[in-house]
Order: sequence, then structure tokens, then C-alpha cells
Amino acid sequence: MQTSFPPADASASGTADQPDQATVDLLGLLAYGELTAFERMATDARMSPTLGDKMALATMAAAEFSHFRAICDELDRLGVGPEDAMAPFIGPLTDFHNSTAPADWLESLVKAYVGDNIAADFYREIATRLPGSSREIVLRVLADTGHAAFAVERVRAAIEANPTVAGRLALWARRLVGEALTQAQRVGVDRDALTGLLVGVGDLDALAAIFNRIMSAHSRRMSALGLSA
Amino acid sequence: MQTSFPPADASASGTADQPDQATVDLLGLLAYGELTAFERMATDARMSPTLGDKMALATMAAAEFSHFRAICDELDRLGVGPEDAMAPFIGPLTDFHNSTAPADWLESLVKAYVGDNIAADFYREIATRLPGSSREIVLRVLADTGHAAFAVERVRAAIEANPTVAGRLALWARRLVGEALTQAQRVGVDRDALTGLLVGVGDLDALAAIFNRIMSAHSRRMSALGLSA
Repeated sequence: MQTSFPPADASASGTADQPDQATVDLLGLLAYGELTAFERMATDARMSPTLGDKMALATMAAAEFSHFRAICDELDRLGVGPEDAMAPFIGPLTDFHNSTAPADWLESLVKAYVGDNIAADFYREIATRLPGSSREIVLRVLADTGHAAFAVERVRAAIEANPTVAGRLALWARRLVGEALTQAQRVGVDRDALTGLLVGVGDLDALAAIFNRIMSAHSRRMSALGLSA
Repeated sequence: MQTSFPPADASASGTADQPDQATVDLLGLLAYGELTAFERMATDARMSPTLGDKMALATMAAAEFSHFRAICDELDRLGVGPEDAMAPFIGPLTDFHNSTAPADWLESLVKAYVGDNIAADFYREIATRLPGSSREIVLRVLADTGHAAFAVERVRAAIEANPTVAGRLALWARRLVGEALTQAQRVGVDRDALTGLLVGVGDLDALAAIFNRIMSAHSRRMSALGLSA
């Protein structure tokens, strides 16, 4: 999805929808997630082994940025300042990225593929419960930006060339999942509206079902990479 | 200027112009310059003191990326692979950035403002001597992406708050210029076609005039920042 630079004044294009707190929280979380994904991919592009890899990663980073702009435009339309909506999530997302800085190109690919897809699955579970236009925008920006196929191909080729990297990358993926769950729990404790949207308060069966769906999808992705989950 | 993701297949939209080596060299140099500027700005965004600064820098980085895509599309149209055109300039530009890694947010702003504008002045001197469509694209991507006003405002405010930073930043700007000249000289020695386009071989008066124009513009920018050149 493509937005203009500088962003169009979206506040003029629609009337405010009286957004509820859960919608604002999800959009703010997702906006800051896209902004940090953009920064991270652009930074990781410096580790690219070839110029073609660098161009591919930079293209994906630019796509994340256009997602970020689309969510900011939706927040503007709802009459909410993007900075205000993002503020509660800066701490958890910064801590996640600081505790999972990739040591090399392969770790950055696994992080982009595994981490972003777990986050996307989680956001999709919440988004289905949002009102109309916000739901559409969230689902649209969560559409794959092409790094799935790219990461799978590169990681599989690296394992084929040197099978010993598979163990290290599998451990790395487990660490990513652990850190993501730690920060997700922290967000859940702080943001009642968001948690309430995801499941009825105290509905542990529903929560377990969501968790199982997300973990099954994660296992399938690990297999696609040639890694044990 | 706005391009699509993924890029349109520009090779289908026009016939090759039989590009000369100087045109290919300038487009390749500029393309890699924009790609590294994108990476650098996106990386520097992590040092932003506020979320608003981070968003502003990320927006400028995304604009650099759209410039990069525009130049790649022009190279495709000319029947030249962007990677081949960029290859000769990877070494000099990588060395420039490695030897001028900003230590903090203010140094990154001065680098973006001072460094990019000197490079842009230099590219413009060459571009006026290029054939039609390539000249137009180069001049269009060199149009300011908004970081001039942003950098000037932030740096002036920092100096006002703490006048002692002015000396450090002035020294930093002199180092940037010195490193840029070192790498420009290296490119000049290696790429005869590019140098030949800039001045007639051996025409030292013309070269001096170009150098003086670029340095005068640099002095005006240093004054705008509140720094001695």
C-alpha cells in the first residue's frame, strides 16, 4: 500500500469515529511496530552480503514505512495524535529490540521472518474485533511485504551450504519468541482495553486457543526455514 | 518524487538511449549515494531525542529511498543493471561513511545537512552536462527532501541551549568536508568519463571555478547553522 510524502492531510478526509481505547491502542502499537521494523530493516541492510540483498531489504523497509504512514493517517482521521497513540508501546518494543539485536545477517533474516510474522498473527487476532475502517487498514498493512519468500530462500541456502548454522538459528528463534512473549505480557498487563478486546476478561480457554493458533503457525514457519521449532 | 513498490518494469516503457559511460557513472554514483543516505538516516533515527524527530527523520529516509528507485528505473530504461552501475562507487562511499560515523544526534544532523548538500551541489554541476531525460531525473531527485529546514532549526536550537557545542560541530563539519574531498578525488582518478564530463581534461581554471562555487555554498550553509566554516 502506497502513501504520499509528505502525508496527505487525512484529518480533512473524514469525520472522527469516536474511537474506543482498544482501537487507538492497537493502531498505536502497530504504528510503532512498523516504525521500528522500518528502522531495524534499514539498519540490518548494512549487514547484507551482496548489493542485491541490500536493495531487497531496503525495498522491504520502505514498504514498512508506507504501512506506518497509512496507520498514522488513520489515527489522524480518528482525531488521535499518532505520537500519543504510540507512547505506551515505546518501552516494550524498544526493550524487545534491544534484547534481540541480531549478531549477523542470518539472525536478522530469521528475526524479520519469525518475529514479524508472530506479531502479525497476534495483531490479526485483535484486528478482527475492530470496527470497520480501522480493521481494513490493519489487515491491509499486515499483508506480506515480500520478505517471507526472501528470508526462507536465503536461510535455507545458508543451511544447505553449512548445516551447523541450523542449531544456532533454531536457538535464536526460541529466544525471539521468549522475548516477544515477555513484552506482550507486559503490554497486556498495562493495557486493559487491548486485552479486553482480545478475550473476555478471565476467558482462559479463548486465550489458550489464540495462543495455540499463533504457535502452530510459528511451527510451520520454522519448518519452512528448515529449523526445528 | 514517488515510485511504486515493487518498482514498475521501466525497461518495457522506453527504448534504450545508448547511454554514454559518464551518464551511467553519474546515475550509479547517485543511486548508491541515495541508498546509503537512506540506510544512514534510518539508522540515525534510532538516536532521535523525541518520537517526533524520529518520525521526521524516517520520513526523509523514505524520500531518499524513492529517489533511489527513480534512478534505478532510469538505469533500467537505459538497459543498464543498477548493480553494475553502482559497483565502482561502493568502496569510496562505504569508506566515507565508515570514517564519518556520527557520535550523536547533532553530529548526524550536521552530516545529513552539510554532507548531502555538498554532494548534491557536486552532482548538479555534472548533471547540467548530461543528456535530456537523465538530467531531468537527477535534478528532480536532488530537490531538497525537507531536511534542510529541519536540521538548521534543530542545530541552532542546540547551540542556543549550549553554545559550547558550536566549536565541536564546526570541527566535525570540517572533517566531513575533508573526507568527502578525499573520496571524490579517488572517484575522479578511477572514473575518467565522469571527470571528463565535469571539466575538459586539464582545464584547471574551470575546475577551480566549480570548486569555488561549491565551497561558497558550503560556507553559506555553515552560517545558517550558526557555525564557522
